[in-house]
Amino acid sequence: MTPAAPALPPALDILGIAVFALTGALTAVRMRQTFVTAAFFALITGVGGGSLRDLLIGAPVFWVRDALVAPVCLATALLAWFTPVRWWQGQLLEWADALGLAVYSVFGTMKALSWGVPPAAAVLMGVVTACIGGVIRDVLAGQPSILMRPELYVTAAALAAGLAGAGVVLALPPALTWAIAVAAGFGLRGAAIHWSLHLPAHGGEE
Amino acid sequence: MTPAAPALPPALDILGIAVFALTGALTAVRMRQTFVTAAFFALITGVGGGSLRDLLIGAPVFWVRDALVAPVCLATALLAWFTPVRWWQGQLLEWADALGLAVYSVFGTMKALSWGVPPAAAVLMGVVTACIGGVIRDVLAGQPSILMRPELYVTAAALAAGLAGAGVVLALPPALTWAIAVAAGFGLRGAAIHWSLHLPAHGGEE
Amino acid sequence: MTPAAPALPPALDILGIAVFALTGALTAVRMRQTFVTAAFFALITGVGGGSLRDLLIGAPVFWVRDALVAPVCLATALLAWFTPVRWWQGQLLEWADALGLAVYSVFGTMKALSWGVPPAAAVLMGVVTACIGGVIRDVLAGQPSILMRPELYVTAAALAAGLAGAGVVLALPPALTWAIAVAAGFGLRGAAIHWSLHLPAHGGEE
Repeated sequence: MTPAAPALPPALDILGIAVFALTGALTAVRMRQTFVTAAFFALITGVGGGSLRDLLIGAPVFWVRDALVAPVCLATALLAWFTPVRWWQGQLLEWADALGLAVYSVFGTMKALSWGVPPAAAVLMGVVTACIGGVIRDVLAGQPSILMRPELYVTAAALAAGLAGAGVVLALPPALTWAIAVAAGFGLRGAAIHWSLHLPAHGGEE
Repeated sequence: MTPAAPALPPALDILGIAVFALTGALTAVRMRQTFVTAAFFALITGVGGGSLRDLLIGAPVFWVRDALVAPVCLATALLAWFTPVRWWQGQLLEWADALGLAVYSVFGTMKALSWGVPPAAAVLMGVVTACIGGVIRDVLAGQPSILMRPELYVTAAALAAGLAGAGVVLALPPALTWAIAVAAGFGLRGAAIHWSLHLPAHGGEE
Repeated sequence: MTPAAPALPPALDILGIAVFALTGALTAVRMRQTFVTAAFFALITGVGGGSLRDLLIGAPVFWVRDALVAPVCLATALLAWFTPVRWWQGQLLEWADALGLAVYSVFGTMKALSWGVPPAAAVLMGVVTACIGGVIRDVLAGQPSILMRPELYVTAAALAAGLAGAGVVLALPPALTWAIAVAAGFGLRGAAIHWSLHLPAHGGEE
């Protein structure tokens, strides 16, 4: 019944969720919200994408039966709350988020494939895993979401997920597929951070 | 375990999803967004309502295991992106959307009934199927959603779904139920488009 | 397969849902929306939180197979629509909402525990049950959600859910756990209403 889903090394998995959760908690802190808001934002950003993926593919929602994920998200909110905001204003967090984006895009695609989802939909599940937590965070915060900004964010997730799907379809060795897909997604997102790359916008009704 | 859910003729089904997806992609194009945004909006608008219906009634989400739906939504986004926006400014798209609204309201109700959902909730599932994709599109775009506009849109979906539920409860022949319910929903929405009909708004706190 | 989930006395359960639904319908009425909008807001506010809880813990969504809940939400919308708005401007509704908040926080936690969810996640499910309907209502209405306001609302839900979880972990008698947790959550929310208590906000980027 339950297929052998791919697993990230547990420490890496928790670290990745904590990075996403931290971006959520910091959004609340920068908006001068309360600790309860910061905790909710940490949780939604940390687990939102994976939750939607699991609901859509019919898998048990990964964090609900896990004893560690929810406490880690709450601990991340405490960290964001009690440390100076300027600690988090360098680019370290943005680069960690870029790595999380690439890793979870690939992981989400692999998990969907292992549950029997066909490749095109599985690639979308990878993008959902990596991006939807941030989209919900932005909608709740009343900010333009990463979906609506021209910077290369969702695009980098789509590249990583697409390469992961292609690697599985072409039967490449899993380690090679992971390496290529994560490197490409992280590289594209990193280039977008470093050179402020943007996708071209449509000209509208002209 | 899996009941024999009603099925639309496959070509009609894909066409209906494509019409909804096109309204999503065009929203992104008109807001001068990027192609990635247009693709996401196409997907969410095309499959959002049916996804929520399937999650609520406990059915497998219809498009996740389908090899065709996701690629069709992405192709629709390409169509919206590479064709002149003025192609889509006539009323043809609005009338196609009206037909899709009526058909999916009936289909959603029928599918919910076939999964054992009682009539009142099944009618709501019909409305959810037809309307929620557009609601999510509007919330993500930061626009007032079709839920919050006085034009007769959700109302037409409710009429079609309600008649479908009534037809099943009264044991009318399925073809007759479909015909009456789709015609009534399409007619009401069409009348609303043609004569700019509105529901009365509440007077508020007066 | 299906654990013996805790149940509220049916009349109390329907009353609690009706109170939440009424706050949704009144939001639409105060915004001078149409009846269809009021009905949708009643439904979403009444059942939104419990629906997300059930999806996340893998339980059948409670109201979809129930013949009573959806009609009661629609009847509540009729009540809000046809009665003078000033009937609902006293504090009675706010106090009823406070009681619903406490009761559903405890109920959601208990239901999640009975489905095998570990304590920390079960407490979050309690908060989700009590608060998410209102959050969706506020996002659809384009208003700052209860998540983003400093008043003690989510906090009171978290207190009630946390005490419920603690009572089960400590194996207190269920009736005692319910009494302590509901009283504490209702008391905190009531104190917040009466004295306009707020959580401290973060200082932001200072």
